[in-house]
Amino acid sequence: MTLKMVLPDAKIWKNIIESLTLLDEANFIASERGIELRAMDPSRVAMVDFFLPADAFEEYICSETTRLGVNLDEMTQIMRRAGPSDALEMELEGTSKLTMTFHGQNVRSFGISLLDLGESEYPAPNIESKVKIKLTAEALQQAVKDAEIIGDHIRIVAEEDELILSASSETKDVKVVIEKDSDVIAEFNVKEESSAMYSLSYLSEMTKAIKASELVMLAFSASMPIQLEFPIVAGGKLTYYLAPRIET
Amino acid sequence: MTLKMVLPDAKIWKNIIESLTLLDEANFIASERGIELRAMDPSRVAMVDFFLPADAFEEYICSETTRLGVNLDEMTQIMRRAGPSDALEMELEGTSKLTMTFHGQNVRSFGISLLDLGESEYPAPNIESKVKIKLTAEALQQAVKDAEIIGDHIRIVAEEDELILSASSETKDVKVVIEKDSDVIAEFNVKEESSAMYSLSYLSEMTKAIKASELVMLAFSASMPIQLEFPIVAGGKLTYYLAPRIET
Amino acid sequence: MTLKMVLPDAKIWKNIIESLTLLDEANFIASERGIELRAMDPSRVAMVDFFLPADAFEEYICSETTRLGVNLDEMTQIMRRAGPSDALEMELEGTSKLTMTFHGQNVRSFGISLLDLGESEYPAPNIESKVKIKLTAEALQQAVKDAEIIGDHIRIVAEEDELILSASSETKDVKVVIEKDSDVIAEFNVKEESSAMYSLSYLSEMTKAIKASELVMLAFSASMPIQLEFPIVAGGKLTYYLAPRIET
Repeated sequence: MTLKMVLPDAKIWKNIIESLTLLDEANFIASERGIELRAMDPSRVAMVDFFLPADAFEEYICSETTRLGVNLDEMTQIMRRAGPSDALEMELEGTSKLTMTFHGQNVRSFGISLLDLGESEYPAPNIESKVKIKLTAEALQQAVKDAEIIGDHIRIVAEEDELILSASSETKDVKVVIEKDSDVIAEFNVKEESSAMYSLSYLSEMTKAIKASELVMLAFSASMPIQLEFPIVAGGKLTYYLAPRIET
Repeated sequence: MTLKMVLPDAKIWKNIIESLTLLDEANFIASERGIELRAMDPSRVAMVDFFLPADAFEEYICSETTRLGVNLDEMTQIMRRAGPSDALEMELEGTSKLTMTFHGQNVRSFGISLLDLGESEYPAPNIESKVKIKLTAEALQQAVKDAEIIGDHIRIVAEEDELILSASSETKDVKVVIEKDSDVIAEFNVKEESSAMYSLSYLSEMTKAIKASELVMLAFSASMPIQLEFPIVAGGKLTYYLAPRIET
Repeated sequence: MTLKMVLPDAKIWKNIIESLTLLDEANFIASERGIELRAMDPSRVAMVDFFLPADAFEEYICSETTRLGVNLDEMTQIMRRAGPSDALEMELEGTSKLTMTFHGQNVRSFGISLLDLGESEYPAPNIESKVKIKLTAEALQQAVKDAEIIGDHIRIVAEEDELILSASSETKDVKVVIEKDSDVIAEFNVKEESSAMYSLSYLSEMTKAIKASELVMLAFSASMPIQLEFPIVAGGKLTYYLAPRIET
């Protein structure tokens, strides 16, 4: 069994790992096509679906499909040690140790024991959303932060020509209105006017690691999970799903 | 009753609100002439006197004098959400809700419930100080920080040609001497050499929110309150009064 | 008894004092030749040897050899108040008070009581190390930080043509390899291949205050103390010694 993955820029992997804060552990699956992960957060309210294709790597050798069980705290600590111009080489040693080597001015190798996390697999969710809006990650992140100072949940409403994000408590409320033709909107597709409510703590985690320059695809329908899809290099992507709050 | 106030730069209001950390709640009074506030801190050692004239606003409509009771923590949280190029519109809705709207790339509206804080009014203090010195806020702030590492109180002494700020404890002391003709002094007016002592924790609050570029008017006399007056845009000003420490 | 020392740049003394975090108190000795300090940390595992020659000062007057017992927390607090272009004047007043005056836009004087710390003197260690490597402080600091996320101790191995720093725990390990001809190496002198283990918490303290541009001389032998020598201005230097971890 040979697994060797080389990224020319260690920061790519650093950003991915720092985006997975909803999870404690992760079962990455490395195969011929690339490395992927599909997992639910411990409270099973949110799902993460990640894929980075073999093409994104400078070198990618995977002789057979392999599961890599990783403690994400440990891997985050290691990735924080990446220097600004380091390349990253990840290599499987035997069956239970992953070596992560930074190649920069010096060679710095970290080894971590892999975990046996079982084989629980999740099918890719197949949701037909009535609303698909592509906007800057920055705009979404700011609306989430606006709502966070008001309450625990955010209502997202898509109308024919605007996206409205709002939150309220007994003494305060907030309403963010993003017009269809605003500069922060790249695509605006509303098949059916929709309204749903989601947990802010989850949305906050999902939007906090993202980079301001990115666009995010936001998709949802009334009483359905919201989907946030962030592009990564070379056709890779990171998708979050979050269950709606049941309104009574 | 109509009250609508538009500031072209939300940061102006942000700085004002962040300067009021001595107060928990504030009873702003909006009238034809502008918006003002006169309040004592909860322990009644310090007073804040604030005024921003109608002219400072891009649009200012106030059909009758109105009291706006505000929880300052809540308003601070909202003002922290102001973007760097946002304009701020504040509007009274009914009699008990204030809507604060940021106009930037998007429109973001926050509503807060107003509080009934009663009508306690304070006359403007009328103190004839023997010493009036205008100096950079930076110089005053640094002297306060120097004194804070030494003790709880600062002694301020104005002599014919220098201002001396000092503090001491059993094992340490500090003395900051600012000459009359120093670059940090803009005006130096000592009718009578004076010495008084003030609480550092209050002076620290009063000087911490200020901007380094500003000048501050410092006025005091022996055993009398100290007055710190900071200019705001368009003839507005923020004045703090702090009772002296009674020396035994 | 006259003691007066003037440094044109207060930051020099600030950096020295901030490098002495291993000590709580220090008995500086001022003499004709300059100011020096030799002390062990409270747990007696590490030693600090510091010397700043009279030449490093703009003005240096010392009429007789004097001991200055200093609480380093207090002196650190004072040095943090140094402005970016302040000069520092230190002067002994009587026998038990040191006045530290910053000369910048204003004159700011801090006085601290000196402590009587007794006369315990330590001879300069005289260790003949088999390995002497001069490298950038940055490279050493990064290797220490890499090892800190793994364990409590670092193993340092000098081979004919490389320096290897490593650490391990049950589930993780790290290995930093610095080649003899790497850009971060200025001198590489290995008389005998050597390996020893040291406490990371001490090495972390020793390397954290240093500036990235500096070179550090690292000297050690198997089962012997490691010595880290940092140059200061005008031929001054700060040397740390750290006992090895006894391996069982």
